[in-house]
Amino acid sequence: MSKIFAVNAGSSSLKFKLFQMPEEKVLTYGVIERIGMDDGICTIRVNGEKVTTYMPVKDHQHAVDLLLKALIKHKIVEKLEEIDACGHRVLHGGEKYDDSAIVTPEVLQDILDMKDLGPLHMPANYTGIEAFSKALPNIRHVAVYDTSFHLSMDRVTFLYALPLEYYEKYHVRRYGFHGTSHKYIAQTYAEIVNDENQRIVSLHLGNGASLCAIKNGKCVNTSMGFTPLSGIMMGGRSGDIDPSIIPYLKEKTGLTGEEIIEVANKKSGFLGISGVSSDARDIQKAIEEGNPRAQLAREMYALRVIDYLGSYFVQLGRIDALVFTAGLGENDYRVRSEICALLEESLGVKLDEELNKNTQGVRGKISALDSKVAVWVIPTDEELMIARDTRRLLNL
Amino acid sequence: MSKIFAVNAGSSSLKFKLFQMPEEKVLTYGVIERIGMDDGICTIRVNGEKVTTYMPVKDHQHAVDLLLKALIKHKIVEKLEEIDACGHRVLHGGEKYDDSAIVTPEVLQDILDMKDLGPLHMPANYTGIEAFSKALPNIRHVAVYDTSFHLSMDRVTFLYALPLEYYEKYHVRRYGFHGTSHKYIAQTYAEIVNDENQRIVSLHLGNGASLCAIKNGKCVNTSMGFTPLSGIMMGGRSGDIDPSIIPYLKEKTGLTGEEIIEVANKKSGFLGISGVSSDARDIQKAIEEGNPRAQLAREMYALRVIDYLGSYFVQLGRIDALVFTAGLGENDYRVRSEICALLEESLGVKLDEELNKNTQGVRGKISALDSKVAVWVIPTDEELMIARDTRRLLNL
Repeated sequence: MSKIFAVNAGSSSLKFKLFQMPEEKVLTYGVIERIGMDDGICTIRVNGEKVTTYMPVKDHQHAVDLLLKALIKHKIVEKLEEIDACGHRVLHGGEKYDDSAIVTPEVLQDILDMKDLGPLHMPANYTGIEAFSKALPNIRHVAVYDTSFHLSMDRVTFLYALPLEYYEKYHVRRYGFHGTSHKYIAQTYAEIVNDENQRIVSLHLGNGASLCAIKNGKCVNTSMGFTPLSGIMMGGRSGDIDPSIIPYLKEKTGLTGEEIIEVANKKSGFLGISGVSSDARDIQKAIEEGNPRAQLAREMYALRVIDYLGSYFVQLGRIDALVFTAGLGENDYRVRSEICALLEESLGVKLDEELNKNTQGVRGKISALDSKVAVWVIPTDEELMIARDTRRLLNL
Repeated sequence: MSKIFAVNAGSSSLKFKLFQMPEEKVLTYGVIERIGMDDGICTIRVNGEKVTTYMPVKDHQHAVDLLLKALIKHKIVEKLEEIDACGHRVLHGGEKYDDSAIVTPEVLQDILDMKDLGPLHMPANYTGIEAFSKALPNIRHVAVYDTSFHLSMDRVTFLYALPLEYYEKYHVRRYGFHGTSHKYIAQTYAEIVNDENQRIVSLHLGNGASLCAIKNGKCVNTSMGFTPLSGIMMGGRSGDIDPSIIPYLKEKTGLTGEEIIEVANKKSGFLGISGVSSDARDIQKAIEEGNPRAQLAREMYALRVIDYLGSYFVQLGRIDALVFTAGLGENDYRVRSEICALLEESLGVKLDEELNKNTQGVRGKISALDSKVAVWVIPTDEELMIARDTRRLLNL
């Protein structure tokens, strides 16, 4: 029996979940937000109750110290020595890390060296590991990369048709993200049907969103690319666009190329088309109020998703199952219904609309009996995957 | 009976084909190259023989004058009054021109106004019309747009998920190109099978390349986007890439964003991956010599093509036929074979490899009897489409 932390450190936040393994029991979870501010917020669950504290949080080290004190104070652990290990989400493992890795000086150095591949996330990921390592110097840490699962992609798939030296010298290629989530879906679905040789598409539809084509448990292709900007349309991200739009818009708007990329990352997607919000729930509300731009945004979304599904159908040869996960995927039956309706004629996908409507945030099959493809909802659990990988690598 | 010119004016070249209509008989064709240079080249067919002349060609007006003199000299026409009309290829008709148009001052002004949508082509297209109008002032001219056929795309399909104002103010959307070719394929295939309600994908695979999903004779989707850069990998063009690659490569290479777009347009695709050439014939030669990068380029090419085919299969609901056209599509049976092999498991596409091998540059069905999708080769004829549209609009 062991207690394992799963940590996701962002630039101004620190999410955590403490598991008791191998039972996979969640002892607590929460988040410290507004790190570096005078009005920091710490949220932690105590016996299922949400306890929120407001206080200045100087930096990540301070956040970790506050968190560990809170564990003791709320009697979630009696002493810190009970914590056996800590797994950390790391955005990018480049081409080197096709699995999670026990943190060593080399692993830490690689995170620094790969900073350019994820300039927003990698420094925060590094800081998170550093802070926990200082606070808990006697335990081991594991880095769990968001890209590892996708390293099974074939070169023919992951290369862009740019000069090959851009790949060889500068590592420009499709990496894909949400790998921990897609891997969880792959493993969980294989367990459910007790068959590891399935061909499935995992639809991680959250505010960020990606699809992953999985064959026999391995990633064959995924919709995000060199960065999380590309692929399907998302909450605030455009997904795929013609790159020539950038120099054209520079001329027209007076913005810099970097600013246009920023617009494509933050003011596009659902937000850009609807003019309402990047949050799918707000879009739904606007649709109900008769907002035509919100309606347009949702129709575009479904079409972008099926574009990738069609590609993956051909690349996989067949699709045994579609699995919806993450915020929208787990909870928005209308989006699932709209996507699947577009797949009926070509792929023979049929939902049981009653089942679909009643499967919100829980695991369940939602396809009709005569659907040619099984359709499932499986809530993702990236933190559990981090804890599992940590336990596996450390033999806990 | 009428004689109609089909003209394609580039920045330093002028391609022409003279038809006798309605017989669609080619009276002559050729090209004037290196316009603006002291060593211009004029090539013209006289009774099927290629006649090449070298001379300085000052500008497009000069080129047109030389061409018309050559027609008389070689007795292709007795006098210029025999020429009834002139159709001109124009790259971009924006959202205004969903059909070809008789040239008026308004049409000419629109070409100038849309210059930003095709900065390389539009000024040359304008100059070509101007030069022919001066040389043949008593006949009417028709503009045939490369984008018109694609204007039947639905808004849900043609919009990018960028802020909607970029579309409304700056006309940023998917336009698609090669429309005249795809329309020719749609019409010709419908005639062949005597059925206008087919769902087909036209694969225009030349040095530039695009796919077009066609339902009941109308374009439903196409792979090129706001510019011809996007879509599938091409001779020198990358096709789709993650736009975030541009700021990253700016940092790494010291190139400007515009220079990287230029690399994506000219030094990528087959050329960039193989390091050999943008010409598919050179790639084939390199493959036969055992060049692994050339092999990689071809494998990537087939995969990019089937990605779009999968998307279009789902969007069309079914595919009745695939039609290969343009340089590679008409002539390279290996490329056709490689693409179709990747479609067998999913779509049930099967080639008759013997038929495929023997169908080079000519019209013919190449699928096996038990293929679930018909596969054809149909040589494209954009010039004929220009002549047909000219005749139709002018009631000749």
